[in-house]
Amino acid sequence: MLKPDLSESKQETKVAVAYLGPRGTFSEAAARAWLQNSPQQHRLQNEQQDDIWHHECDSIHDVVQAVARGKARYGVVPVENSTEGTVNDTQDCLIDSSLHIVGERVVVIRHHLFARPGCDLDSIRRIASHRQSLAQCRRWLRTNCPDLPLHECTSNAQAACLSAEEPTTAAIAGSLAGEIYGLLALADDIQDEAHNSTRFLVLAGGDAVAPDATGRDKTSVLVHAENRPGALFRILQPFDSLQISLTRIETRPSRKEAWAYVFFIDFEGHREDEPVKELFRRLDSCTAEIKFLGSYPRCTA
Amino acid sequence: MLKPDLSESKQETKVAVAYLGPRGTFSEAAARAWLQNSPQQHRLQNEQQDDIWHHECDSIHDVVQAVARGKARYGVVPVENSTEGTVNDTQDCLIDSSLHIVGERVVVIRHHLFARPGCDLDSIRRIASHRQSLAQCRRWLRTNCPDLPLHECTSNAQAACLSAEEPTTAAIAGSLAGEIYGLLALADDIQDEAHNSTRFLVLAGGDAVAPDATGRDKTSVLVHAENRPGALFRILQPFDSLQISLTRIETRPSRKEAWAYVFFIDFEGHREDEPVKELFRRLDSCTAEIKFLGSYPRCTA
Repeated sequence: MLKPDLSESKQETKVAVAYLGPRGTFSEAAARAWLQNSPQQHRLQNEQQDDIWHHECDSIHDVVQAVARGKARYGVVPVENSTEGTVNDTQDCLIDSSLHIVGERVVVIRHHLFARPGCDLDSIRRIASHRQSLAQCRRWLRTNCPDLPLHECTSNAQAACLSAEEPTTAAIAGSLAGEIYGLLALADDIQDEAHNSTRFLVLAGGDAVAPDATGRDKTSVLVHAENRPGALFRILQPFDSLQISLTRIETRPSRKEAWAYVFFIDFEGHREDEPVKELFRRLDSCTAEIKFLGSYPRCTA
Repeated sequence: MLKPDLSESKQETKVAVAYLGPRGTFSEAAARAWLQNSPQQHRLQNEQQDDIWHHECDSIHDVVQAVARGKARYGVVPVENSTEGTVNDTQDCLIDSSLHIVGERVVVIRHHLFARPGCDLDSIRRIASHRQSLAQCRRWLRTNCPDLPLHECTSNAQAACLSAEEPTTAAIAGSLAGEIYGLLALADDIQDEAHNSTRFLVLAGGDAVAPDATGRDKTSVLVHAENRPGALFRILQPFDSLQISLTRIETRPSRKEAWAYVFFIDFEGHREDEPVKELFRRLDSCTAEIKFLGSYPRCTA
């Protein structure tokens, strides 16, 4: 069970939040959006934003480790993109870690073309961004600047940083990166697909305060199914009979044996809700192993 | 329905098979293994191996396109690794294409350390391979040559090609790559995990001969579920009542709208088996859309 740890946190002055760096990534945008609306018990109201210490990591694994080792109180990691699907690194980290999910945030991915103030498109000699962002703006680039060479960076925040140093390099990045690196937008919303969002999870250590039930919650579990026919059907049966809505189900290799799987299941409801308590009782009898990952307020953004 | 197209194929002398290149990849190993055991109706017996034309592609998308446009009769693509999970590019290509799955092949991933004949470990100055292969042999490398620098290549077949050119570069690659590039193994089976296999699918155009039922078959379908609670449960219900075993279920974004999903389902049985015919009738009434991807002999390797 999650327990409040008030004594320690009262003495803290800074709250460390770990995410995929460098500064200006969509992970940071997700972290900020969540912190600004964090529940009361996480004591991160707007007036305390200055007390947040940003802990930028090189990988999802590093974010999870930073929280597990107490270097950061929260870790914000991408879990799913609306067009690209599941982020496997995040799922696999959740299999092994003892962290809990305390929140989620959906960030709409909007790309802009940024350059240093005073530059216009005519003065630009190349366009920098992450490979995926360049691909997501392919149509716009072909129409508006078909002759400019593209330069791949490890993140679009890094591209924004590069653009801040080189007046002839424009960067495709999100608005937070533009703001942080002091750039101006030459063109807004240049992504080809209108519906492109990424869902992020907020992770905390096992001693963190568990979010209270709000009536609009989501619960995540990891299920090691029995290795015999109909196992998944029997897992889904109690959801159906208790009228609990699944919002997502993902399959990953179990890593214990070849061609055995675990299921990541998200569903509506909070661990303290009566139907969910009953669900856990029924699942216990039909699954090889069930791991509770967290109950947290649903993000409707 | 798949129909035989004998008139055209009788005139052909060469059979083109497309896969991820360059020569010597595990994709080529899968293609060879499948061709050597291909069913009668594909007319690819052992004595005709010389008639096979290898069509190496740069990406999974290119393999699918080569088959769709008639440049290759078969395409061999990785679909799932026992530790890394689903190959998303392959799943996404299947959503849009009209190709059918006519076979599958499981290749055990075994890594060897190769060098030019006459070289020994003492004369090696660096070790080249794909990033994933280097990671999969981390323990062996740390124990046996902790001081040698590692060099990342785009594939381990490319690393083998490099080793053939440079006597001081050893390559981590599969046995087929070693054979093709004339290398000798300095060490065998150096991968850290014993159970590492990749499952490949063999794709063919809609006019290809559909494999006959063998009694040990698998069928793959793509299901666009209804967007309402319990949709997945209702899809699995007929499998349970007809006692048809699911072998795999994978979720991918539908790409039609944000946060809507499609399910890739593999199950035991052939489209011509009576229970499977009944399954399709029942699924028709409870799914938004169902796409048949193929019935083919199960690979038990």
